[in-house]
Amino acid sequence: MKAIRTYIEENKERFLNELFDLIRIPSVSSLAEHKPEMYRCAEQWKKLLLEAGVDRAEVYETEGNPVTYGEKIIDPARPTVLVYGHMDVMPVDPLQEWRTTPFEPVVKDGKIWARGADDDKGQAFMHAKAFEYLVKRGTLPCNVKFMIEGEEEIGSPNLPKFCRDHEEMLAADVILVSDTSMIARDIPSITTGLRGLAYWQVEVTGPKADLHSGLFGGAVANPINVLCQMIAAMQDEQGRVTIPGFYDDVLEVSDEERALMAKAPFDEEAYKQALGVKALRGEDGYSTPERTGIRPTFDACGIWGGYTGEGAKTVLPAKAYAKISCRLVPYQQHEKVARLFQEHFEAMAPAGVTVKVEYLHGGPSYLCPIDLPAYKAAEKAYHEVYGKMPVPVRSGGSIPIIATFEEVLKVKSVLMGFGLSSDAIHSPNEHFPLEQFFNGIVTLALFYRHFAGEK
Amino acid sequence: MKAIRTYIEENKERFLNELFDLIRIPSVSSLAEHKPEMYRCAEQWKKLLLEAGVDRAEVYETEGNPVTYGEKIIDPARPTVLVYGHMDVMPVDPLQEWRTTPFEPVVKDGKIWARGADDDKGQAFMHAKAFEYLVKRGTLPCNVKFMIEGEEEIGSPNLPKFCRDHEEMLAADVILVSDTSMIARDIPSITTGLRGLAYWQVEVTGPKADLHSGLFGGAVANPINVLCQMIAAMQDEQGRVTIPGFYDDVLEVSDEERALMAKAPFDEEAYKQALGVKALRGEDGYSTPERTGIRPTFDACGIWGGYTGEGAKTVLPAKAYAKISCRLVPYQQHEKVARLFQEHFEAMAPAGVTVKVEYLHGGPSYLCPIDLPAYKAAEKAYHEVYGKMPVPVRSGGSIPIIATFEEVLKVKSVLMGFGLSSDAIHSPNEHFPLEQFFNGIVTLALFYRHFAGEK
Repeated sequence: MKAIRTYIEENKERFLNELFDLIRIPSVSSLAEHKPEMYRCAEQWKKLLLEAGVDRAEVYETEGNPVTYGEKIIDPARPTVLVYGHMDVMPVDPLQEWRTTPFEPVVKDGKIWARGADDDKGQAFMHAKAFEYLVKRGTLPCNVKFMIEGEEEIGSPNLPKFCRDHEEMLAADVILVSDTSMIARDIPSITTGLRGLAYWQVEVTGPKADLHSGLFGGAVANPINVLCQMIAAMQDEQGRVTIPGFYDDVLEVSDEERALMAKAPFDEEAYKQALGVKALRGEDGYSTPERTGIRPTFDACGIWGGYTGEGAKTVLPAKAYAKISCRLVPYQQHEKVARLFQEHFEAMAPAGVTVKVEYLHGGPSYLCPIDLPAYKAAEKAYHEVYGKMPVPVRSGGSIPIIATFEEVLKVKSVLMGFGLSSDAIHSPNEHFPLEQFFNGIVTLALFYRHFAGEK
Repeated sequence: MKAIRTYIEENKERFLNELFDLIRIPSVSSLAEHKPEMYRCAEQWKKLLLEAGVDRAEVYETEGNPVTYGEKIIDPARPTVLVYGHMDVMPVDPLQEWRTTPFEPVVKDGKIWARGADDDKGQAFMHAKAFEYLVKRGTLPCNVKFMIEGEEEIGSPNLPKFCRDHEEMLAADVILVSDTSMIARDIPSITTGLRGLAYWQVEVTGPKADLHSGLFGGAVANPINVLCQMIAAMQDEQGRVTIPGFYDDVLEVSDEERALMAKAPFDEEAYKQALGVKALRGEDGYSTPERTGIRPTFDACGIWGGYTGEGAKTVLPAKAYAKISCRLVPYQQHEKVARLFQEHFEAMAPAGVTVKVEYLHGGPSYLCPIDLPAYKAAEKAYHEVYGKMPVPVRSGGSIPIIATFEEVLKVKSVLMGFGLSSDAIHSPNEHFPLEQFFNGIVTLALFYRHFAGEK
């Protein structure tokens, strides 16, 4: 472990410069106009992997954004690890809330500040550097493959086909992913469960044009009022989702397992303070970790309609819109939930408006068994670096592709995340602590040794 | 009447050019950056009035936008008419729905298409031309004063003070206003009632920053979900507003008067078709004309929060906003309703969010007695031009300043509107039929004769 710490210390500046070059490419996958940036980013990854020591690297076209693949096969008889990461990032708005420029990374207070600093450029980059170290020292104990995609933040629509088309190339014993968080900087954890996702855009149309709210107000259905009523009706007073059939396939976690989960450290006061809220709010009968770990949700992620400028405009708008998402848990099927929501939402539209529901994307949930050899290897690596056994946790987030890997490649994933919940991923002022960045590189290098049984 | 028709025919092109010069000034009062345009517009009005024949005209400063005043006093012993109009217009968004350029007027299909073509540049301009005709012919039978303000569309915040400060200058026997509509091009009407208005902006704040909807979804109050719930809760299933005390001061119109109102022509099918809706929706127990004429409303005029761009962003936003308005009827007091709403809205905020309510503006409702001499004079003028007695109607719109005139200047207003409900005021593709524009000029000129008793 000392050797790799020294290697990091000696190469720190170069590591940061390489990561910053990656971050400076504004690879926002949800914005069509950023498409050329995705290609720049894919080529940059190819360069990074070749410099780190892969035998070959290539940028693969898909129907959407490219995938960068690279591999180093030391011996086909040895175990193979497939590293998965993503080069794309979330949009940066609201821009005015950033204290730095999102795509111009800076180091301040021991953290890297930038969009993608953690999710997932920072975390994926740690893999390249752990690999580089092992290659340079001649101690790489297994075959390593890298698959860095460009559509994770929009639900990886083209990666399943890519996996099916390159099943042999991607064959591996385990998939390693760093795209999650630890409980705290001194409490290592490994994510063993991920929620699924379903995401829609809805449009409510009333009159064919915006109307004067005085002349017509009171006589016609106002699309904003109606949209609010419909969204409000999707949850009851107990915080439960009212879509018929929504809970039918939800895995009800046993009292025993809930009791175990309750032993994981959780400081409600610190959590509230970190989020800046005076009270938490969620489904009755469940704790906060349960609400985010084992229960599905209904959230409007965006809403707009009518006059939103300065001052007052007395308008009765023609249209109102919302972006709506549900987090799903085992064994909810996102396609089924997508259909249940659409049917329910359309059916509840009152006369005088028309409703359009568009399913934007979705993905299944995931569970990783904690007796998996790769999980055990990860456990040991964290223990060496952090001095504590990592806690297995169910995360509220979604990485839809993880479930697809299992289905298509028949390989389990181990989620070795080094982010912190305070990193503000998907938000303004995303950041990643240098301590986690460097610890991550060390932990990943150790993982390979344990996984290959070479300790 | 033949003489003025000939005068209009001979000067038609000049009239339109003068009006178009006025329209080309984008005098949007709700946008601070348009302030210089307000001054350009005020100076343009001064020029117009001087050319039309006033003795003096002046641009008055206020704390906000300027007021253009002009007058021609032929004989202090004769009756005095104060013409009120406004030079400011509504914002033009959504811009992409306009088929023409909003501030570049064009004549097509017998209509003027532009922002302000009707409301209120076109209608106010008719007064200048009726006056010009009477002056040029030497037949002006009374004193005329013009007061053209620049803040009507934002609730005339500075005009009450202007009226108080210039009470003597503005003294008149009646105020004449063209800022309303007729029932149809062949059904003249005079607006005898106006609804009042209260308009707020509300802000719901949850967590201190946008959060990842997966990691935190289900654990914290989502400001959009909460805002939707709060807006939805403001009306019950019968379409009644649930703010405690909201209906306390509402004038319940007698069954007799409601029966009279029901005799005014109203074609529900044509109304629905004009608006492009399959069904109408409003307060149970009231007809559509009643819902817009004698009943108060609750409408969200705008809403925004979270991610509103292309594609999907899984965000749990920190804030959500709405613009909310209530139309009020006699004898609701807008200041009281403003307070009732604020108290109710703040009180219903659930734990985990904070709510901010800002009262943007408001104004009282208005009733004009149909036995007023000026009303009788207007009635006769319409009858001569349209061949039918005008129908007295209660409009759903608000011109808050009309009630203020009564309070400050102790003068009643007669609302001689020539717009049509299909003119799309406040909406994209606002227009004003040339037929109404020319008929308006004739009718207003005739009004002066009847009002001065010189028929």
